[in-house]
Amino acid sequence: MIKVGILGYGNLGRGVEAAVTLSEDMELVAIYTRRDPSTVTVKSNAPVKSTADLDTGKEDIDVLVICGGSATDLPEMTPKYAKLYNVIDSFDTHARIPEHFANVDKASKEAGKLGLISCGWDPGMFSLNRLYATSILPKGQAYTFWGKGVSQGHSDAIRRIEGVVDARQYTVPVPEALERVRNGENPELTTREKHTRECFVVVEEGADKARIEKEIKEMPNYFSDYDTTVNFISEEELKKNHSGLPHGGSVIYTGETGFDGNKHVIEYSLNLDSNPEFTGAVLTAYARAISRMNKEGATGAKTVFDIAPAYLSPIPAEELRAHFL
Amino acid sequence: MIKVGILGYGNLGRGVEAAVTLSEDMELVAIYTRRDPSTVTVKSNAPVKSTADLDTGKEDIDVLVICGGSATDLPEMTPKYAKLYNVIDSFDTHARIPEHFANVDKASKEAGKLGLISCGWDPGMFSLNRLYATSILPKGQAYTFWGKGVSQGHSDAIRRIEGVVDARQYTVPVPEALERVRNGENPELTTREKHTRECFVVVEEGADKARIEKEIKEMPNYFSDYDTTVNFISEEELKKNHSGLPHGGSVIYTGETGFDGNKHVIEYSLNLDSNPEFTGAVLTAYARAISRMNKEGATGAKTVFDIAPAYLSPIPAEELRAHFL
Repeated sequence: MIKVGILGYGNLGRGVEAAVTLSEDMELVAIYTRRDPSTVTVKSNAPVKSTADLDTGKEDIDVLVICGGSATDLPEMTPKYAKLYNVIDSFDTHARIPEHFANVDKASKEAGKLGLISCGWDPGMFSLNRLYATSILPKGQAYTFWGKGVSQGHSDAIRRIEGVVDARQYTVPVPEALERVRNGENPELTTREKHTRECFVVVEEGADKARIEKEIKEMPNYFSDYDTTVNFISEEELKKNHSGLPHGGSVIYTGETGFDGNKHVIEYSLNLDSNPEFTGAVLTAYARAISRMNKEGATGAKTVFDIAPAYLSPIPAEELRAHFL
Repeated sequence: MIKVGILGYGNLGRGVEAAVTLSEDMELVAIYTRRDPSTVTVKSNAPVKSTADLDTGKEDIDVLVICGGSATDLPEMTPKYAKLYNVIDSFDTHARIPEHFANVDKASKEAGKLGLISCGWDPGMFSLNRLYATSILPKGQAYTFWGKGVSQGHSDAIRRIEGVVDARQYTVPVPEALERVRNGENPELTTREKHTRECFVVVEEGADKARIEKEIKEMPNYFSDYDTTVNFISEEELKKNHSGLPHGGSVIYTGETGFDGNKHVIEYSLNLDSNPEFTGAVLTAYARAISRMNKEGATGAKTVFDIAPAYLSPIPAEELRAHFL
C-alpha cells in the first residue's frame, strides 16, 4: 500500500481525498491542515492532523500531496516539505515554473526524495499532449483552448468589486476559432478571437449595476482583452444553476509530414464535471508514480515530462502490454 | 547526431525516411533492403544498402527502424537485429505482443541494446491514451474508434477475390455510437454498431459483380460482422479519388470521480492525411528516445508505456519546462 498524506483541505484537497480513497493500492494516512484540526470535518475516514505534526518530518507517509494556491502557498510549502517527504503539487504560475523547479530540486535532492511539480491538467495532461505532438510533428503548431468552464480566479476578481455578493465566470472557447484550427487553417488568433467570458453576478440590493458591469468589462488582464457578457442573477439562481466547478478544453495540434506536405490534426480534449476532482485524480496517479520511482532510487524535482506512463498505473507491466497496448 | 538506419522500404519505410530527414538532430545513415539495392530508388540522399551489410553487425547506426509486416517479417526480424543494434518496430498483432516482447527482451538484454516494440498510433499513441486515462480515472471505460480511413489489410483481402483488379476499403465509425459514448452513456456496443465498412472495387471486364459483392460481404473476420457497402468504380476513379492512405480515429474514455459520481470525458483523436507518414513520424520520435536511453545504460525490450515523454523531444529539459509545461 502506498501511504498518502494530503496537505490542505479546500476543493483540490477534497478531490485528492476522493481519488486516493478509490485507489485500491493506496491508503490515506491523514489530512493535514493549518486550521485547528478539530474544526475540520472530512468526507473519508482519514484523521485530520495539524501541520505541526507534518513539520516533525516523522509522519509515516510515502507521498505528500500539497493542495495549496500557486500565488503564495506552493512557492513556500513545496520546497519546505520536499526536505522531509516525497511531494507533489499543482503549481500553475507558468512564468515562475523554472524558479519553483530549482527550489524543489535542491530540497528534494538533499533529502533523497522526489518532488513532482505542476501536475494536473494544465499544466499536466495538456502539457504532455503539447510535448508528444510537437515531438512527433516538429513542423506544426499547438493551440490550447480552455472551457467551457468556471475560472475560479476570474470569479474571485469579480467578487472583489464593490457591491458584488457572489459571482461565477465561465471561460468559453470561440466556436469559429476551434473550427478554423481543426480545419488545419493554422490561423493567427488574438486573445479576443480565442475565448469569450460569461459572468453571472449577484449584487447587493440597490447596487449600481451599470457601474459594476463597466468595472468588470474594463478590468485589465482579466477581462479587458475579451468579449465579456455580464448577467445579473439572484443568489438562488446562482446556487441552483452555477454551483458546480465544471471545466475542460482542448489541445489541438496541426502539423505536416513528408515530402508532399501531408497534414495531420491531433486533438486531446477534456470535458469535466468537476475541475478539482479531476485534477485531484491526476495528482493521485502521479503520487503513485513518484512513490515508486523514489523506491527505485530517483531523487530531485520532476515534471510530468519525466515520468514514464507505466508508473501511473497499479496494473502490472505484463498485463498492461497484454491488454492496453 | 543520432544515426538512424531503416530496414524495409515500403510505405512505412518512406514515412520514416521523411521524418528522419526533417529531424535536425538525426542523420539517415542508410536504407537497407532485401531486394537488390541497385533496383531501389529513394526520395532522400541516403544510400541504399543490402541487408547483408546489416547482418555483419558493423553498421555505424544508433537505431535501426524496422519497417516490416507484423504477420511474418517482424517476429523474425526484430529479435534477430535486436542482437546487433538498438531496434524499434511497429508490431501490431495484439494477441502476440507478450511473445514478441519476450523474444526481443532476451535478444536486446544479451546484446546490451534497447528494443522498442509496437510503436505507432495503435498500438502506440492510442495505447498511451488508454493507459493515461485509466490511471487517472480507474472507474471508467475506454472506447476506441478507427477511421474514417483506409485499412490496407481489408483492401488486400478484397484484392484476393477472383475478378478483382484493385480495391480500397474505408473503415468508418458509426456517428450515433460516437455520440452516445461522448455523451457518457457507457453503451455496450457490438462490432456492427461501432464501425461500417465502405469498399471501392475495380473489377475485370465481364466479371460477376453480384458474386464479388456477396463474397466481400460474407468474408469471415474481415466483413461478415459489419454493415458493408460495395461500390464498383473504374480504375481511373480509384486512382483519382482513392490513392491516398488517410486514417485516424479516437480513444474516448468516460469515467467518474468523487463521492457524488461526477463524470468526465477524455478524448484523444487523430485525423491523418497519411497513415504511414504519421506512423513513421511516431517511430522517429521514439527512435530518438531509445538511442538516448541506451546511452544512459538502459537495455532490454520496452514499449511506449516505459518511455518518459521528455526523451522524445530534441528540445532541452529546461526549455520544455519553460515553454511546454
